[in-house]
Amino acid sequence: MQTDPTFPPRLPAPPYFAVIFSSQRTADDGLGYAMMADRMEELARQQSGFLGVESVRAADGQGITVSCWNDLDSIQAWRNHAEHRIAQETGRNKWYESFQLQICRVERSSTFRRSND
Amino acid sequence: MQTDPTFPPRLPAPPYFAVIFSSQRTADDGLGYAMMADRMEELARQQSGFLGVESVRAADGQGITVSCWNDLDSIQAWRNHAEHRIAQETGRNKWYESFQLQICRVERSSTFRRSND
Repeated sequence: MQTDPTFPPRLPAPPYFAVIFSSQRTADDGLGYAMMADRMEELARQQSGFLGVESVRAADGQGITVSCWNDLDSIQAWRNHAEHRIAQETGRNKWYESFQLQICRVERSSTFRRSND
Repeated sequence: MQTDPTFPPRLPAPPYFAVIFSSQRTADDGLGYAMMADRMEELARQQSGFLGVESVRAADGQGITVSCWNDLDSIQAWRNHAEHRIAQETGRNKWYESFQLQICRVERSSTFRRSND
């Protein structure tokens, strides 16, 4: 299996904040959704306080995205970003059957990477 | 698209705790891995303090599992569960190329479910 060295993302030591976005896609507008998802990730990476993002979607349309941020103010600013606001509204209107947002303070973390010696 | 009414899981109002487990699978032992994953979810649901779990894995082997718990003691007890310990060790030896664990305190949450009127 090909491995992606950017997954899981490398993050600073805690504490920091995470947004867990769990969603169930509708069957609608796969291309429009994919374009929006790529654009939102590109935009998020440019925001102040952004630390990292990881996103997984399965064939059945269930997905989890975790984005990590320095502080709650950065999360709030990203939430209110004009282009992100349009994506959120389109998501409720068209792309998502259901979703859940959880805002968390990350208190501890650990990482494992296989050594290929 | 068929929707799963248990995704995202229904959770109590915050605060509670979440474990974000992000992993990259190796190509090894797909059947053994799938059996272990099912068994660990079944076992987790029986533990004291368990609130809910959601898990997504994509075709490229990247996965994110989020489990939610009443308190840090429940997370610690689950971590130390004998059968879970064996799964953790086998994961490092065989199933995972890399993984990351983040322990968080969930401070806010919101949910959207489409009304199908």
